[in-house]
Amino acid sequence: MTIPRTIRMHENDNVAIVVNAGGLPEGTVFPDGLTLRTRVPEGHKVALVDIAQGERIVRYDVTIGYALQPIARGTWIEESLVGMPAARGLDDLPRPVRDRAPLPPLEGHTFEGFRNPDGSVGTRNILAISETVQCVSGVVAFAVERIKKELLPNYPYVDDVVAIEHTYGCGVAIDAPGAEIPIRTLRNIAKNPNFGGRVMLVSLGCEKLQPARMFPAGSIPIQTPNQGLDTVCLQDAAHVGFGDMIASIMRTAEKHLAALNERRRETVPASELVVGVQCGGSDAFSGVTANPAVGFASDLLVRAGAAVMFSETTEVRDGIDQLTSRAADDDVAQAMIREMAWYDEYLKRGGVDRSANTTPGNKKGGLANITEKAMGSIIKSGTAPIAGVLSPGDKLQQKGLIYAATPASDFICGTLQLAAGMNMHVFTTGRGTPYGLAAVPVVKVATRDDLARRWHDLMDINAGRIATGEATIADVGWELFHFLLDVASGRKKTWAEHWKLHNALTLFNPAPVT
Amino acid sequence: MTIPRTIRMHENDNVAIVVNAGGLPEGTVFPDGLTLRTRVPEGHKVALVDIAQGERIVRYDVTIGYALQPIARGTWIEESLVGMPAARGLDDLPRPVRDRAPLPPLEGHTFEGFRNPDGSVGTRNILAISETVQCVSGVVAFAVERIKKELLPNYPYVDDVVAIEHTYGCGVAIDAPGAEIPIRTLRNIAKNPNFGGRVMLVSLGCEKLQPARMFPAGSIPIQTPNQGLDTVCLQDAAHVGFGDMIASIMRTAEKHLAALNERRRETVPASELVVGVQCGGSDAFSGVTANPAVGFASDLLVRAGAAVMFSETTEVRDGIDQLTSRAADDDVAQAMIREMAWYDEYLKRGGVDRSANTTPGNKKGGLANITEKAMGSIIKSGTAPIAGVLSPGDKLQQKGLIYAATPASDFICGTLQLAAGMNMHVFTTGRGTPYGLAAVPVVKVATRDDLARRWHDLMDINAGRIATGEATIADVGWELFHFLLDVASGRKKTWAEHWKLHNALTLFNPAPVT
Ligand SMILES: [Ca+2]
Ligand SMILES: [Ca+2]
Ligand SMILES: [Ca+2]
Ligand SMILES: [Ca+2]
Ligand SMILES: [Ca+2]
Repeated sequence: MTIPRTIRMHENDNVAIVVNAGGLPEGTVFPDGLTLRTRVPEGHKVALVDIAQGERIVRYDVTIGYALQPIARGTWIEESLVGMPAARGLDDLPRPVRDRAPLPPLEGHTFEGFRNPDGSVGTRNILAISETVQCVSGVVAFAVERIKKELLPNYPYVDDVVAIEHTYGCGVAIDAPGAEIPIRTLRNIAKNPNFGGRVMLVSLGCEKLQPARMFPAGSIPIQTPNQGLDTVCLQDAAHVGFGDMIASIMRTAEKHLAALNERRRETVPASELVVGVQCGGSDAFSGVTANPAVGFASDLLVRAGAAVMFSETTEVRDGIDQLTSRAADDDVAQAMIREMAWYDEYLKRGGVDRSANTTPGNKKGGLANITEKAMGSIIKSGTAPIAGVLSPGDKLQQKGLIYAATPASDFICGTLQLAAGMNMHVFTTGRGTPYGLAAVPVVKVATRDDLARRWHDLMDINAGRIATGEATIADVGWELFHFLLDVASGRKKTWAEHWKLHNALTLFNPAPVT
Repeated sequence: MTIPRTIRMHENDNVAIVVNAGGLPEGTVFPDGLTLRTRVPEGHKVALVDIAQGERIVRYDVTIGYALQPIARGTWIEESLVGMPAARGLDDLPRPVRDRAPLPPLEGHTFEGFRNPDGSVGTRNILAISETVQCVSGVVAFAVERIKKELLPNYPYVDDVVAIEHTYGCGVAIDAPGAEIPIRTLRNIAKNPNFGGRVMLVSLGCEKLQPARMFPAGSIPIQTPNQGLDTVCLQDAAHVGFGDMIASIMRTAEKHLAALNERRRETVPASELVVGVQCGGSDAFSGVTANPAVGFASDLLVRAGAAVMFSETTEVRDGIDQLTSRAADDDVAQAMIREMAWYDEYLKRGGVDRSANTTPGNKKGGLANITEKAMGSIIKSGTAPIAGVLSPGDKLQQKGLIYAATPASDFICGTLQLAAGMNMHVFTTGRGTPYGLAAVPVVKVATRDDLARRWHDLMDINAGRIATGEATIADVGWELFHFLLDVASGRKKTWAEHWKLHNALTLFNPAPVT
């Protein structure tokens, strides 16, 4: 018989999580004497003490809700027993903690990467073909298939050819408030370090998002006097027939392939990593196993001088007071409040609030509400001070722990982190998702042992061993840190890369379509 | 030397369009004595009389603007000379014209189609794999590639296997006002007549858009006692490893392939066509050649008993008074006003108005503003009374000319017309676009001879011959009508089908993401 186990996140908590596979039956007796008065499903909360009606339910040393009726010690705290705490306002938030001791530096860790002209480092060597508008995507997809078959084999140092397909560019209110977000996202994706600092663009000709608007003068660094933005325009009068369009795209692509093929990996410090972390398909184990392990790895990365972005505004919104106190200075705290306020307003305009975030899967997994989910989400940012804040679609220009404001939607968050310049992506999941991106390796961390075993060829890291007691948070954090360096170096591949699984990029466009 | 030519749309117009390729130089003398005082580019307007400052500029017998300064007969009416007319309010619109003579019936036209259990008729025999959520799309794409390679060759009567990939399903405010639009769109796409009335669904498991929400009880007709909604859930505990997921999808797909393979084309009346018409990459020729020809064909289709949908709310908004007077009855007129008001409000909420529609390409092509563009867009609906109005994402249940309210965005409009049940798509373009859809044939009609010649293997119909005088509107209208019946029957393919060019479906989601 397996030993009944719970995990309590903080000594002030009056609930803990049952971690045994399949949950535990009524009558189970724990080594410390706690006896279950009801069945408790796996990943769900049990009351550690008698909780009176109206009393706070505390997890992560934070009030995640109020008891709607008396809850006896040993009882399963079902969602229906938990009243949601009031929304945290954005006034009178804690000021940043002063004179915080910095995390100790971590030295000596390197990876093999592709150094770019602008100083950034790629983890893959990819030809990206940018598109101004959705109209061209069928033609570009046709060309990419031929490029992969006919040209790519001649350029063995190039890893892949990727079309930056999207649904923006025309039929949109391009001058509306918020339209700058999708436009700068597309611009900055083209400059992702994995694309070697080269920009190749396919345009239709009559679209609203003209090449000069997507890449205004100066936005593309000129690498040599003769080499700037390379555009193939399908409506160009010189194109007679479909074959001419394909030939133009292939000719332009070959020029870039030849240049990219000259690049070689070199040893660079771990500080060149730009890691985007997020979670999706979360359960109660996300905040207990995978996210704390990612938080541990995040601290290692920050200590090594790298950049780590955490995101997902609706999932951290309820922990804003934690975040402002962790801000490096008042400017960072104010920027964070500004991003939260913008999103509050965006949701309000659409007739909803942050409670729109939680999914049926979250609740089935034991998360009572967005407050509890937020605490489990924030923990993947580790303990470093928050060094900066990035608006959606902006490019990251600094190191350290960054709050990159994005929606929580996995694909929109990933797309915006890609635009920010991420060269490695970490994704934790409790319920399981086969998420992948074509442009950057996605390392998937399973929250539960059961998921890691069943999805053995989709999950890269098993943080479920923390729940079973086989590993500590530190063990899995270090494992993830080393795996990131191996994958970044091309020595290892993620499962998503192995199967060539990837999802479409998804732009965040808060403006109307027309 | 070519003969200088203009086209005037109505005897009350004080402007005409220069149709000669490359435009005409200053000093050109027309057969009727008109002499150009300035150069006039191809597709642009010339003043037929002296127009005083503040006087109306009239095209299609409609005021498309006001002269901002005196414009002498023979002068190019540049965009900068045209003041935009005030927005047409939605009050006091004309009532439907009473006792209108119906269009004479057109009998004897048929095509060879696939009759479905619900009575609808497909023009292609396609296995569609629906998805609840973007998370599954990488896995489904992997499976579809293997299905096409390993299974499809064994089912020669099945034309194709198509994944209904989309970016909805999770990370969205699923209970927000407007969220019903993307949900019903996905539901109704699955029921498109080209998919044989069979619904196969791949779900993740923890997504917000659960299968039962996407297809509530009763929304999928049960064809036999044992055959309803067929769902593969990736998070199903029975799936151990990626291979199990792919095997589940392939096993389910094969069952549907076997059933679809039993279907045969049969002769059906032309009334079984459900044609969606739209335009994209418009120029001044759109409203002179291609759209009038499509309008002629639309009348033929309506006379034959078919359904024809025209759409693109922001492009017809400025012609709302024409449309209410063409409504079959007051209910239809009111429904049209309701859809326009909804869209006005949607744009306003996003901080813009209908002037956000026009593109740089439109203006370069000679369209001064949205009013002029609207007149050229509406003309593709022909002259039939408007028999009904459809809200975005709804399924069409009637015949005749329908106003299907959609954004003008080519891909969103096409996706919504697909959900409405379109089995043939007609797309007119002046500047040129390689648009295609995987689920339904897209017949592309070029507005200009030059475009049709250069894009000879992308454009299916050349309406530019109307401008050169080689064909009448009726000639091209009949040609399109017969081509539609040929393509619907599978006797001919569109160029987009020939090259397998297709664009991603794009949902209209007016609600926020989370
Ligand atoms: Ca998340
Ligand atoms: Ca996420
Ligand atoms: Ca249009
Ligand atoms: Ca359109
Ligand atoms: Ca076509």
